[in-house]
Amino acid sequence: MTDRIRIAVLGASGYTGADLVRLALTHPRVEIAALAANAKAGQSMQAIWPHFAPYKLPTLVKPEEIDFSTIDVVFGCLPHAASAELLSKVEGPRIVDLSADFRLTDPAVYAEWYGNAHPAPALLTEAVYGLTEYARGLLPTARIAACPGCYPTAALLALLPLVEGHAVDASTISVFAMSGVSGAGRSLKEANLFPEVAEAVHPYGIGKHRHMPEIEQEITRYAGHPVRVGFTPHLVPMNRGELVTATVDLAEGASLATLRELLAQRYDEEPFVHLLPEGVAPATRMVRGSNHAVVNVFADRNPRRALVIAAIDNLVKGSSGQAVQNMNLMMGLGETLGLEAAPLFP
Amino acid sequence: MTDRIRIAVLGASGYTGADLVRLALTHPRVEIAALAANAKAGQSMQAIWPHFAPYKLPTLVKPEEIDFSTIDVVFGCLPHAASAELLSKVEGPRIVDLSADFRLTDPAVYAEWYGNAHPAPALLTEAVYGLTEYARGLLPTARIAACPGCYPTAALLALLPLVEGHAVDASTISVFAMSGVSGAGRSLKEANLFPEVAEAVHPYGIGKHRHMPEIEQEITRYAGHPVRVGFTPHLVPMNRGELVTATVDLAEGASLATLRELLAQRYDEEPFVHLLPEGVAPATRMVRGSNHAVVNVFADRNPRRALVIAAIDNLVKGSSGQAVQNMNLMMGLGETLGLEAAPLFP
Amino acid sequence: MTDRIRIAVLGASGYTGADLVRLALTHPRVEIAALAANAKAGQSMQAIWPHFAPYKLPTLVKPEEIDFSTIDVVFGCLPHAASAELLSKVEGPRIVDLSADFRLTDPAVYAEWYGNAHPAPALLTEAVYGLTEYARGLLPTARIAACPGCYPTAALLALLPLVEGHAVDASTISVFAMSGVSGAGRSLKEANLFPEVAEAVHPYGIGKHRHMPEIEQEITRYAGHPVRVGFTPHLVPMNRGELVTATVDLAEGASLATLRELLAQRYDEEPFVHLLPEGVAPATRMVRGSNHAVVNVFADRNPRRALVIAAIDNLVKGSSGQAVQNMNLMMGLGETLGLEAAPLFP
Amino acid sequence: MTDRIRIAVLGASGYTGADLVRLALTHPRVEIAALAANAKAGQSMQAIWPHFAPYKLPTLVKPEEIDFSTIDVVFGCLPHAASAELLSKVEGPRIVDLSADFRLTDPAVYAEWYGNAHPAPALLTEAVYGLTEYARGLLPTARIAACPGCYPTAALLALLPLVEGHAVDASTISVFAMSGVSGAGRSLKEANLFPEVAEAVHPYGIGKHRHMPEIEQEITRYAGHPVRVGFTPHLVPMNRGELVTATVDLAEGASLATLRELLAQRYDEEPFVHLLPEGVAPATRMVRGSNHAVVNVFADRNPRRALVIAAIDNLVKGSSGQAVQNMNLMMGLGETLGLEAAPLFP
Repeated sequence: MTDRIRIAVLGASGYTGADLVRLALTHPRVEIAALAANAKAGQSMQAIWPHFAPYKLPTLVKPEEIDFSTIDVVFGCLPHAASAELLSKVEGPRIVDLSADFRLTDPAVYAEWYGNAHPAPALLTEAVYGLTEYARGLLPTARIAACPGCYPTAALLALLPLVEGHAVDASTISVFAMSGVSGAGRSLKEANLFPEVAEAVHPYGIGKHRHMPEIEQEITRYAGHPVRVGFTPHLVPMNRGELVTATVDLAEGASLATLRELLAQRYDEEPFVHLLPEGVAPATRMVRGSNHAVVNVFADRNPRRALVIAAIDNLVKGSSGQAVQNMNLMMGLGETLGLEAAPLFP
Repeated sequence: MTDRIRIAVLGASGYTGADLVRLALTHPRVEIAALAANAKAGQSMQAIWPHFAPYKLPTLVKPEEIDFSTIDVVFGCLPHAASAELLSKVEGPRIVDLSADFRLTDPAVYAEWYGNAHPAPALLTEAVYGLTEYARGLLPTARIAACPGCYPTAALLALLPLVEGHAVDASTISVFAMSGVSGAGRSLKEANLFPEVAEAVHPYGIGKHRHMPEIEQEITRYAGHPVRVGFTPHLVPMNRGELVTATVDLAEGASLATLRELLAQRYDEEPFVHLLPEGVAPATRMVRGSNHAVVNVFADRNPRRALVIAAIDNLVKGSSGQAVQNMNLMMGLGETLGLEAAPLFP
Repeated sequence: MTDRIRIAVLGASGYTGADLVRLALTHPRVEIAALAANAKAGQSMQAIWPHFAPYKLPTLVKPEEIDFSTIDVVFGCLPHAASAELLSKVEGPRIVDLSADFRLTDPAVYAEWYGNAHPAPALLTEAVYGLTEYARGLLPTARIAACPGCYPTAALLALLPLVEGHAVDASTISVFAMSGVSGAGRSLKEANLFPEVAEAVHPYGIGKHRHMPEIEQEITRYAGHPVRVGFTPHLVPMNRGELVTATVDLAEGASLATLRELLAQRYDEEPFVHLLPEGVAPATRMVRGSNHAVVNVFADRNPRRALVIAAIDNLVKGSSGQAVQNMNLMMGLGETLGLEAAPLFP
Repeated sequence: MTDRIRIAVLGASGYTGADLVRLALTHPRVEIAALAANAKAGQSMQAIWPHFAPYKLPTLVKPEEIDFSTIDVVFGCLPHAASAELLSKVEGPRIVDLSADFRLTDPAVYAEWYGNAHPAPALLTEAVYGLTEYARGLLPTARIAACPGCYPTAALLALLPLVEGHAVDASTISVFAMSGVSGAGRSLKEANLFPEVAEAVHPYGIGKHRHMPEIEQEITRYAGHPVRVGFTPHLVPMNRGELVTATVDLAEGASLATLRELLAQRYDEEPFVHLLPEGVAPATRMVRGSNHAVVNVFADRNPRRALVIAAIDNLVKGSSGQAVQNMNLMMGLGETLGLEAAPLFP
């Protein structure tokens, strides 16, 4: 086991933590050295996660009980604020954080959207926004990979090539999104009980979802000027999966073919992001349980607009899978290692 | 039973036909006189519809076997083209058609979107577009009520007051929609098998869904000038329910408050259409199994735009319920008769 | 409104309470006079129940704030123990209790299965076990109707005619059951979050589910000797619906035809319980949202055994619908009043 | 690629065929050399399977177009009868058949349950019933592995150790089973449309499901005397997963502890079959998407009976995963190769 990367997962009692453990279990170069949670410390993983029944895993401890000097990579799957506060005390290991704490580069924007001052603003300069396909050059030397939110992952994979290529008017972007319920986490909320959600759909967080500033930050970065992005998520009765359907005005001189060409060029060699054939609509069933993303563009009824659509598994490419992808790059491993599983359909 | 309206349902083997029968069964002024289907003629309703096991209903016959001289109202639940072709031979009874055949006033538009010449263009002048809340004055004397498609019902209920009030720029409307799978009908398509659809979401009919021209026709009518409307439907793993989330640019001088006021004025007295309190998001679970529609408006992140959202049950207000509502008005009955059931949640 | 029965619903913040309100809303002889809850007192029904958005309803109060002298019928939808404790102080109105508190006639059995002494044993003699089809003679004069649990309702409707007719060996009954998640109530348990339950099935409460003694009590009553009944419930990813599949050894001389005949005789005239045609399997979709129950018998592979199967909607016939049915009989109304809605399918 | 086993999959257009391809895609020693289907020959896999969008795969051909001399292992995923008929002409490659054609050793029993004479009775002697954990000694030299049906796999894994250990009276076994809808295959049947199945549960194939004789054959083999087994499957609204809950009378002198001990001994070293800790109920979510099976025993209310429960993923351990497991053993590979993925939850 000496050639294995020893990882610790903080927050292994949540869905993202558990999916990280699932991926780590079969990663050929990873050893799961420590698993931590707060309320559930002391319990076995099998006790709280039925699907780990066949596996041997470390018992959950409190995060502060971990000897971080023996750990190579820490995965932060804790809630925002708690994550940065804890990680600010961790020295030594590389950090892959799946919370929101290191995504926004401006602590003032963080404070505005999250309602608390940033717990560790000094660390922000050590963090790279970990949308892997756009962070590849920075990850090998970054101390912290700030994994994007699930919605931003899908939206940005669809939109960034078009924005970067100046083929669309970034100020007109409107993103409609749908997510499975695992995106809401495992915390006890009436709204997430099965009978509240099954056989139903509704929008939520209208105009105030915390993934909005993150999308705007990255679109702004690639557009080169400040941009506001309309973003309306909807809750759909499924466990996993996320789909974004965005409208955007074409830039002067750009056509649907331009957009297609930009996506093709950008993603042709990507192992996990795929431009679908013309006319094929992205669907969450194409990527379920896998680290793949699928994107495509379509003509809108309004001739000056286009539709850009992307689908991911919110827990994999939208969370734990991308985190492993980032770790692979940070540690000099093959980018796809441990992420090869094909999508599960049906 | 002499004071009862004798109805015939053509196409009682489909979901809309069945839901019409469900409503008719408890309608205090209706007698189900005849039920027709093509492939399934000769079978009992119980044999093809498990939920009618406790009821006595007429055996399915071929449409041409019905003696229409004994029928007061015919409900057409047949596929497009077949519906108009058959109904063009029916004299005597009033007609409530749930197919697409009498919705589009221009037979050329019909031919373009449905791929066949209109089977009975002469009848179009006898038909009223039966979005009940906007057709109330015309229905009592109309021979044919052309019930709107499910998506148009939801979209138009949300948008028409704003368009009619010139508070929005109708040419900027973009409609994102989600529907339960019953909207796809009971015909045998691989795409509608449970394992293809469950635990998944995807857009479909992008840029070519047949409800698009219908939405455009009515928006155009109330805007007073030709309008194109972006419309992208998505299939969601639920049986019933439809939600539309539309973005639209505000007209010069209009604000969110203007939109809210227009919806409030328009729907304040309506028995089935309800403006929700500020900040409450429409949800399909609010209306499941009922004839209600709920609407609301929200600020978009883009300050010159607004979000308009509506939810209905696609088989009730979006289809059979609205058909009964139209029949009630055509026959001089109380508009809500037989439609009083409260939504079923969970 | 003076000819209306004024009801109070205690526990209107739970699923059974809400479904009772749903039915009461359209019951022609009921006036909803008061709605009570504990934690949610002070809130409007619309605030906690999205599907009541279109309705006017009394604001939730604490149970003790209700003036019971103005109430004709109290519906108890509170958790066990809390229900009996509260109802023991209510004088005047008739009581329809949906908790477990008045179902078991022996307080010692209650204490054994519920873990607490019975809060009001003196009241037990005033209570009738309200499986309506078997309690019709007693309900008009009963002060308390103790509505059966959902599983017992389905199991007993299937089994009692056979046990009563001595056509089966009651000591060999084994009941396998499946329920939708609404049966677990609206309380916050991780096990009932959507992602824990969707796309999955598992047994629960094996050998210790609290509906077991209730089934045994009634089977024992009709068998005429003490009986133990195997009972294994499973949680199924659906909102509503309950199905029981029971095996039982045939009594000496009895055949499948005997069983069928007994069911036919017992239920031929029943408005809500229906023996299906030979070979037709009961299905929850046959009864969704309605007060109907469907039953049938089948040959088992083991020639000395039979399969008896029943399906109900756990929230209607299994809970609130049967409660209304009981109220109708207690108050001298038509038994089916307010319960006529046909099942909702799909 | 020369050290890779070249496989052909006949029937790659069905769910089992597709799941075999999914597993083969990441199997380190397998090369997918040919994919065949009948109606869909000529199409690309991506065209008919959305989740293979990111992959390069052979185009579908007709089975007879395959040059079997270049193939090491043929996987038969065709319907019964068609499978044996085709495979009887295939010489050279080893055969892993997932149809029912080689499961029943007696062609007369096959004819009785499948309604046609066995197409290739001579081949039956070359086939091994491929319940891997019970066929390990025979598979390395077998020409044909007849993979068990999904229900038999779950039922037999739970029951065989108890029957083999004479701890139960095999003639009293009663199996209640629940399956996800993928078990019904991808063929076009109204009964499998989403709206027919979602939000619902019902038994099917009562007394005549074709997995019954297969369960009886194997129970009989291990009991040492002819046994009939009650078996009642139910359709549950989920894509994948299968759960069996069986009751059985304890043999004289046996106790629950005996059963537990037998299961523990039998499965202690198994990579894919796991006896859960005392009191932990098997659940399909424990094994989703994986080749694992979980089993456990419980006391029944009836003291002379026990409950034996097992859960599998019907498409993996119940079908394609076990097929790969069998291939691994036939070809001298590590048994778990290509099957290491951990379960997907949520």
